[in-house]
Amino acid sequence: MHHHFLTIPQLGIERCQTILRLAEKLRHSDAVPQLGATVAVAFFEPSTRTRLSFELAAQRLGCHVVSFSAPGSSIEKGESFADTLRTLQAMGAQAIVLRHSASGSVHAAARVLARAALINAGDGMAEHPTQALLDARTLLDVFGSLDGKRIAIIGDCLHSRVFRSDYALFQMLGAQIGICAPPLLMPHLPKDAAVERFSDVDVALAWADAAVVLRLQRERMAAGLVPSLADYRRRYAVTLERIDRSSAYVLHPGPVNPGVELDAAAVEHPRSLIARQVTNGVLIRMAVLIEIVAPELVQQSFHI
Amino acid sequence: MHHHFLTIPQLGIERCQTILRLAEKLRHSDAVPQLGATVAVAFFEPSTRTRLSFELAAQRLGCHVVSFSAPGSSIEKGESFADTLRTLQAMGAQAIVLRHSASGSVHAAARVLARAALINAGDGMAEHPTQALLDARTLLDVFGSLDGKRIAIIGDCLHSRVFRSDYALFQMLGAQIGICAPPLLMPHLPKDAAVERFSDVDVALAWADAAVVLRLQRERMAAGLVPSLADYRRRYAVTLERIDRSSAYVLHPGPVNPGVELDAAAVEHPRSLIARQVTNGVLIRMAVLIEIVAPELVQQSFHI
Amino acid sequence: MHHHFLTIPQLGIERCQTILRLAEKLRHSDAVPQLGATVAVAFFEPSTRTRLSFELAAQRLGCHVVSFSAPGSSIEKGESFADTLRTLQAMGAQAIVLRHSASGSVHAAARVLARAALINAGDGMAEHPTQALLDARTLLDVFGSLDGKRIAIIGDCLHSRVFRSDYALFQMLGAQIGICAPPLLMPHLPKDAAVERFSDVDVALAWADAAVVLRLQRERMAAGLVPSLADYRRRYAVTLERIDRSSAYVLHPGPVNPGVELDAAAVEHPRSLIARQVTNGVLIRMAVLIEIVAPELVQQSFHI
Repeated sequence: MHHHFLTIPQLGIERCQTILRLAEKLRHSDAVPQLGATVAVAFFEPSTRTRLSFELAAQRLGCHVVSFSAPGSSIEKGESFADTLRTLQAMGAQAIVLRHSASGSVHAAARVLARAALINAGDGMAEHPTQALLDARTLLDVFGSLDGKRIAIIGDCLHSRVFRSDYALFQMLGAQIGICAPPLLMPHLPKDAAVERFSDVDVALAWADAAVVLRLQRERMAAGLVPSLADYRRRYAVTLERIDRSSAYVLHPGPVNPGVELDAAAVEHPRSLIARQVTNGVLIRMAVLIEIVAPELVQQSFHI
Repeated sequence: MHHHFLTIPQLGIERCQTILRLAEKLRHSDAVPQLGATVAVAFFEPSTRTRLSFELAAQRLGCHVVSFSAPGSSIEKGESFADTLRTLQAMGAQAIVLRHSASGSVHAAARVLARAALINAGDGMAEHPTQALLDARTLLDVFGSLDGKRIAIIGDCLHSRVFRSDYALFQMLGAQIGICAPPLLMPHLPKDAAVERFSDVDVALAWADAAVVLRLQRERMAAGLVPSLADYRRRYAVTLERIDRSSAYVLHPGPVNPGVELDAAAVEHPRSLIARQVTNGVLIRMAVLIEIVAPELVQQSFHI
Repeated sequence: MHHHFLTIPQLGIERCQTILRLAEKLRHSDAVPQLGATVAVAFFEPSTRTRLSFELAAQRLGCHVVSFSAPGSSIEKGESFADTLRTLQAMGAQAIVLRHSASGSVHAAARVLARAALINAGDGMAEHPTQALLDARTLLDVFGSLDGKRIAIIGDCLHSRVFRSDYALFQMLGAQIGICAPPLLMPHLPKDAAVERFSDVDVALAWADAAVVLRLQRERMAAGLVPSLADYRRRYAVTLERIDRSSAYVLHPGPVNPGVELDAAAVEHPRSLIARQVTNGVLIRMAVLIEIVAPELVQQSFHI
């Protein structure tokens, strides 16, 4: 018990591999272990799908789940962030699933917690490690291994926590990373980073075995980082035609902005892995909870 | 598994009869089956009592329940309706309970779902089939059969999904339907529809074996469909005096506008069936979940 | 089954003692009874920590829990308070946990409920009895008995439901009570009330074995009851220095206004009992639910 789950680099290749394998074993398990643990789901930034995915994962493992979103919580009453986390820990939560709009907030949170393990469910623009693991699990389902596979990440990489976690994990797993983004939304990477950079989405899709399409936050337009929706769509949108011209699989962390970064109909394209990502999301979160709350089961029950 | 639950006419008399009988058996069961299924409760329009009734029904059947209301959900982030439903299905929900303010939205939703079964918990002004079933169950508790029974539906029938579902189900079960509504709130029915029309609420109550009183939305006043609250109350309200002058049982789908369409004290009148409706609501929703998620149990465990 | 849980004086010393002992037994129980009851948590005033504490207590006892907060509930639709409570009862809730901003609302609520037991989770400025019980449990953990112990209650006693419940319970348990508050926030007590009154927080802390520090609602400043935050802090705040100069234990019902009535760092002072209060909160609420829903277990299973 108790090792925080904060960022892909901190997790390291071994814990990531364990979680990826555990999720696959859970997919084929008739019965899953009933942990009887307490899991607190604390969302200071709204997100229906990630919240429900964690709640469901915890319920399937026979956990007691308490859940709150900041708008309905006592944040209004001036309860401090640290105070809330300490309270959840004192109530007996073994794991606290945290979503927060401030990058790095999970590190501040982790320092407050001596007993409960913190699980990062997305912190600002920094990391979203369970998303990267479910993306990797989905790609492994199709490719068996990521070694040498070409993964294009398309869209607003600069502001994306999904990008940062995917990039770290995919590299760890031996994939080649390609990036296709408008000039002002390119991520800041070391000059010698081993990535392919694309300005043409068709070239990126032709190069890629799979493409992760990122959400375009509409605020980027207001900020002048993208000239217009129409321009973005013309140059970077993963349209049905573009998918059909390529042979790449398509992933998206959801929720999709239909008709902006991805065509609505693309979600159901034969090479779309989006529904599989959602299914794997629950499995990955179950694996994370087991690995944190009952690590002895990883070997004993799952022989990993 | 998998037949959507959308409208009373689509369900047909046989499924409705099965659910009505199953609810009655559940009332007297010491132990109910534990389904272990996943039920998603997706409310895009607020409603405490219907949401809690479904959540409780699912919990009593040992289901995992994930629940969200649109104001706290990612609808804000532009997540499309169809995307949300597909996500819930991909998370493994066998049943999705949907409440939406748009009439007919359940049909659009059903087309999106290939595996999960959709349960209509009220769509705009169109249908509210579990309400009709719990109303019928309540009337059956008192009358044994609805054949030839006179049921008056009183109030704003034009805008009421409860009216539409009740009307369809009560007719199916052999009841005679009476309607008492202000002229501008009369429902559009075929000219030859076999209904009694009443303009005087006392005459309707004298005629009826039971009366379903509908909520008057305050917006109807603003829209000029009702001259004034005082006028509505004088001509159509089911007051304590009017109940006492009649011998009809009184139902109301809740929540009551006390002193508008129904006196507050009428809720506890000896001939009020309102508390029984709420109790039956949980039983009907349990029956619906069993019939959808584990139809084999209907015969095997309940011998229906 | 069925004795409401409304105020400390109504509960009386015997029920309070039972609950305090039961909570202590639960702390050391390997397995707790699984009640299979239905618990409704109805919060008409927001409070994350109290809501989660009750939800978790109910879950650990194997209860079905339905929960709502007024902003997301049908209160918007004009559903009356009494109607909501009757509905929860008709759904089969054996216990209804109520938080409401109106002092005395629990008494009105209790009159409506013939079968379900009402549990007061805080009503306006009147009472918060589970808070008093968890405070007492926490003090008993440290002192063994409250007989003759000196407990200072510091801050806005006038508007505090925690003050009223603590005061009643601590006296019942034989403690000496001290009050330290600004002149306009002193509670109205009988002239001959056996309390020590302090105007100097250092003198109060020097006198006390333990101090319960109350939240200062920022509205008090606006109302002119406190000259300024700076003045309040200088004269009444329980700062780290003041704690170190005394030998008193420190309690706070949470959430803390850091730097107003209590220093943020004081929460983790060696003599802070704040985390223990939160842990005991879940135990006390489990004890209350058992004592109300399954009173036969108190003797049979716990030998109290």
